[in-house]
Amino acid sequence: MYNFKNDYSEGAHPRILDKLIETNLIQQLGYGEDDYSNEAKSILKKKIANQQAVIHFLSGGTQTNLLVISFLLRIHEAVISAKTGHISANETGAIEATGHKVITVETSDGKLTPNDITMVLKEHALAPHVVKPRIVYISNSTEIGTIYSLAELEALYVCCQQQQLLLYLDGARLGHALTAKNNDLTFAAIAKYTDVFYIGGTKNGALLGEAVVFNRPELAVDFDYAIKQKGALLAKGRVLSIQFLTLFQDDLYLELALRANSLAMRMAKAIKDKGYSFLTESTTNQIFPILPKSLIEALLINYQFYIWKDIDSDYAAVRLITSWATDEKQVTNFINDILNS
Amino acid sequence: MYNFKNDYSEGAHPRILDKLIETNLIQQLGYGEDDYSNEAKSILKKKIANQQAVIHFLSGGTQTNLLVISFLLRIHEAVISAKTGHISANETGAIEATGHKVITVETSDGKLTPNDITMVLKEHALAPHVVKPRIVYISNSTEIGTIYSLAELEALYVCCQQQQLLLYLDGARLGHALTAKNNDLTFAAIAKYTDVFYIGGTKNGALLGEAVVFNRPELAVDFDYAIKQKGALLAKGRVLSIQFLTLFQDDLYLELALRANSLAMRMAKAIKDKGYSFLTESTTNQIFPILPKSLIEALLINYQFYIWKDIDSDYAAVRLITSWATDEKQVTNFINDILNS
Amino acid sequence: MYNFKNDYSEGAHPRILDKLIETNLIQQLGYGEDDYSNEAKSILKKKIANQQAVIHFLSGGTQTNLLVISFLLRIHEAVISAKTGHISANETGAIEATGHKVITVETSDGKLTPNDITMVLKEHALAPHVVKPRIVYISNSTEIGTIYSLAELEALYVCCQQQQLLLYLDGARLGHALTAKNNDLTFAAIAKYTDVFYIGGTKNGALLGEAVVFNRPELAVDFDYAIKQKGALLAKGRVLSIQFLTLFQDDLYLELALRANSLAMRMAKAIKDKGYSFLTESTTNQIFPILPKSLIEALLINYQFYIWKDIDSDYAAVRLITSWATDEKQVTNFINDILNS
Amino acid sequence: MYNFKNDYSEGAHPRILDKLIETNLIQQLGYGEDDYSNEAKSILKKKIANQQAVIHFLSGGTQTNLLVISFLLRIHEAVISAKTGHISANETGAIEATGHKVITVETSDGKLTPNDITMVLKEHALAPHVVKPRIVYISNSTEIGTIYSLAELEALYVCCQQQQLLLYLDGARLGHALTAKNNDLTFAAIAKYTDVFYIGGTKNGALLGEAVVFNRPELAVDFDYAIKQKGALLAKGRVLSIQFLTLFQDDLYLELALRANSLAMRMAKAIKDKGYSFLTESTTNQIFPILPKSLIEALLINYQFYIWKDIDSDYAAVRLITSWATDEKQVTNFINDILNS
Repeated sequence: MYNFKNDYSEGAHPRILDKLIETNLIQQLGYGEDDYSNEAKSILKKKIANQQAVIHFLSGGTQTNLLVISFLLRIHEAVISAKTGHISANETGAIEATGHKVITVETSDGKLTPNDITMVLKEHALAPHVVKPRIVYISNSTEIGTIYSLAELEALYVCCQQQQLLLYLDGARLGHALTAKNNDLTFAAIAKYTDVFYIGGTKNGALLGEAVVFNRPELAVDFDYAIKQKGALLAKGRVLSIQFLTLFQDDLYLELALRANSLAMRMAKAIKDKGYSFLTESTTNQIFPILPKSLIEALLINYQFYIWKDIDSDYAAVRLITSWATDEKQVTNFINDILNS
Repeated sequence: MYNFKNDYSEGAHPRILDKLIETNLIQQLGYGEDDYSNEAKSILKKKIANQQAVIHFLSGGTQTNLLVISFLLRIHEAVISAKTGHISANETGAIEATGHKVITVETSDGKLTPNDITMVLKEHALAPHVVKPRIVYISNSTEIGTIYSLAELEALYVCCQQQQLLLYLDGARLGHALTAKNNDLTFAAIAKYTDVFYIGGTKNGALLGEAVVFNRPELAVDFDYAIKQKGALLAKGRVLSIQFLTLFQDDLYLELALRANSLAMRMAKAIKDKGYSFLTESTTNQIFPILPKSLIEALLINYQFYIWKDIDSDYAAVRLITSWATDEKQVTNFINDILNS
Repeated sequence: MYNFKNDYSEGAHPRILDKLIETNLIQQLGYGEDDYSNEAKSILKKKIANQQAVIHFLSGGTQTNLLVISFLLRIHEAVISAKTGHISANETGAIEATGHKVITVETSDGKLTPNDITMVLKEHALAPHVVKPRIVYISNSTEIGTIYSLAELEALYVCCQQQQLLLYLDGARLGHALTAKNNDLTFAAIAKYTDVFYIGGTKNGALLGEAVVFNRPELAVDFDYAIKQKGALLAKGRVLSIQFLTLFQDDLYLELALRANSLAMRMAKAIKDKGYSFLTESTTNQIFPILPKSLIEALLINYQFYIWKDIDSDYAAVRLITSWATDEKQVTNFINDILNS
Repeated sequence: MYNFKNDYSEGAHPRILDKLIETNLIQQLGYGEDDYSNEAKSILKKKIANQQAVIHFLSGGTQTNLLVISFLLRIHEAVISAKTGHISANETGAIEATGHKVITVETSDGKLTPNDITMVLKEHALAPHVVKPRIVYISNSTEIGTIYSLAELEALYVCCQQQQLLLYLDGARLGHALTAKNNDLTFAAIAKYTDVFYIGGTKNGALLGEAVVFNRPELAVDFDYAIKQKGALLAKGRVLSIQFLTLFQDDLYLELALRANSLAMRMAKAIKDKGYSFLTESTTNQIFPILPKSLIEALLINYQFYIWKDIDSDYAAVRLITSWATDEKQVTNFINDILNS
């Protein structure tokens, strides 16, 4: 059985493990004050072209989302998200557990537009009987594989600025977004057109780890208290910083994501060639082909993947994910199994 | 400068890193469903002699404490802790942030007694104008290096049972407690005389990780939801389980703690021989000698450690911590510096 | 200007004020332990035909909803509501502020069905990445004037029982529901086919006050702590109990609601006779006619009411509310203004 | 049996009931937008000599405290209180339930000093492992009957300003403080030397109601959302505003408090004349004499009051409270019973 269920089935890129071993017995300060944290942050600030940025390393996406959102909101404020957004669909009410409503918007492609924001604000006009929208949460790439263009992100940011909203981007799969063939964003553009964002490590070669970036330093004041309070401050901060130091001291992060995308696109092409359609127009490492149920059944003998959505009595959409660690031979096998089906 | 500030200045015991490398590219299910989790849980259940126990692996002590306590309490219930308890003194209001009061008790030795519990209950009799105590939180070893005896733990548990209270033990340094020279507890006794406890990995050789044990399985139902909600569910659960698999497949865990204790006791003996007294009667890897300020100043040239408490104009208590990774030569140097002072 | 905006524009039914004066200087215990509370609870238990019920008096609907829901849910559990439900649309994130997600369902008539519940459960199957539905929240009459039939309520309750869900009914306007011409429910039926419900006083003649009823006493254990914790325990509990004692010692409560309904139905008939349609099929004291914007503008010269929803360039739906205190002459004037328009 | 247990055993001052009746059927806007609210706020701003102040009317002290504190604090911030403070001792963890730690200080007289604040700040220096103190909570009169002098309040406020702390004063019994014989504070001084305070109605002649005053308007922005979210926004805001309109349109509020104090002082004098001592040096309407247990037993035949604290085998401290409504004859009887004992 080969696993296309997700992009965290393996451990870490070997160079990360090498670095862990190499530095293992060097004494370091705890709680993120280690030398590797400083070094990794310095590298990241250059990549995003924002020396003012404040960066912290955290363990996972849900943890990062709940920390950023609960830290930035006052008690009556809320966050806007696409209904497919991770904070709405996949985090066991993590945001609500910190006291805040997630206002959801139905979308076809998992992306928010200025028009969506305007509509939400209109629907939340009857103060004080409704929450006050304050953060706009987006994911790039989205939970259904799509990506934002530079123009889309800029327009959304301008809208947020006008409405006194903060724009927060969940980059659990930011590498995959930035290496998609139709991408025109860069780290620097992301830093310019968001208030806060995070760079996902877990789904792109790290053992664990997300780097949260406050582009406006005044937003980050006292965030270290929040990290500790929510149980996210690792005693051995080196565990996290070494992931990012290794992934970003050269272009490893983007190389790994590009590899994952390429393998997914190979699979997508074969599926398309065979005449099947897709639930979403993904250009990243998650694809959602609509396949005959009989074919799905046959594939499930050798491969693991999620059945995403029932389409009709004969068809269902499935989710296939590739990663930096995906075995190329298994991709070839899968493609052959599709083509020969 | 050598660091005696804490027991998490280095990375992990090398056998843990070896195991991470050995298993790195083997595909595993995410979110704690990996084979290593199952194997590690199975080993731990044997160690604690409780096949009914439900075990989960988490990333850190504050995270574990806030998860267990917020999961087990209803909204009007509270937790009792020594004032020196980690949840009271060192967690940035993590418990309160989940909505619950920490009722604190002044103690001389960091330990709670049945009498303390009875007093707290008496002071919380005027329902419904006060919170309802429901959990008793203790640490072993305590934050000031002391340990519970079997008789003390059993008495506390019996008291809790009579008062319908849950007994929860924070084992961030459980290894150090169980290998102290005056210890008569075992893993099995801990499991028998608490409702929930955790076995700390971070401070005893793991990169990160705490194993929380629900001795009564009915208390653990749905705990997985809580783990996800609080951002504590690692996608790559293997990162945590491999720590415990390695530490517990033989006696490595206790061996590492014993080594840390021995080094601390060597330092304590020299300090005592030199005629200095101690703030607390520690038999574990944290010691709190009361030293002349001039000596402290001199020591701080070569060693890092916390000044714990001002005693008078001439003396202060300091905290010295050793670990599985402490350099024996540095301990010898430190002792010589004391003796020659 | 006459106000048809809501059913709380006036003070209290005069008999309530009389009773406040009559009892004013009689010393009573505080915090709901007054004699009037006991008497009112005793009367209510008879009305609902449930001697086991546990009853508490609270100050308002949002307060009651957040108290009941936060008290009954564990941290990972959620409440299901129609999107028009008060807890979803009108309470400033009060439920989320206590840590819980409100799962919303789109409905045409503001009412939930067993099929809605089944769908929500299916969408929340991927534990532990989603919240666990535990309470079903409904309103009767609903926020858009419709009511549940006995058969509908019973079916919903049976569904909840099968799925281990609690059914909670918001009765802010329960009197109006029970006196609607198409109603076949009784207080006793409500008590039989819900786990918890509340009887609204504020919108039916009380100065303030809602009576929350736990039909299963085991659900109410320790609820008094929650009342105090959320700031809902009035020192002078008599203020609340005297409202309910007066409204329920005879049939005043239902008489007042019936009067409100009748006046609304008179208005509805005139509007219908004039050829206008309605947004919802209300049989209670809130009606939502769709009127020409020119007519709305003309009416707003003499009457206050909410413009509820824009329909098209020529029409909008408005909300008209009557109450126990509505001036019959003003209703007649309004009807004439409609008929002569 | 006559009740000296508290100052809320009776209803409201008759002039309040008169005003409720007089205004009962005049239509008003809901949710605090009624004419009486505007009028009462206008009067209060004059009394406190601060036209910039923002005022809201709430239902009770716990509700007010949890609203103000949870609204003003960010997630990692905490409030400092005397251990006897209402938020620490009597509110069922209401503040913690909103996510915040209450840092308590032992005091002899229920009052905080600049020195207490400095000590707390010193103990909370190890950021980010501790909460960040942000609000100082005091009560005047305190829970044990003592009051702040002008010099004390000013010194505390200056200290708070220097330390970037907010000073919040709980005035549940502010009238009693301002009419104590040793008082030198005024409403204007309270407004000048606090950031936020509230004027208690419930314990001084109102049916219910507390008036919260934000002396710096920028602190109050969006507070109306919080009121709604916590279930504290009464639909019929007139119920609250009419209390304050009546109590403050002349000097009724202070007259009622003065009467309560005078009666308590009469009782205190007799007790002192008889040779008994007191637990606290109260000059307000709560006194805490230390009486022989045999005498207490005898008094409990005719009077209700709390036994506050066991002193030794022969003596206990009791709490006696008088109010605007206390029967003067009963005070005389009680005094005679003491003198003749």
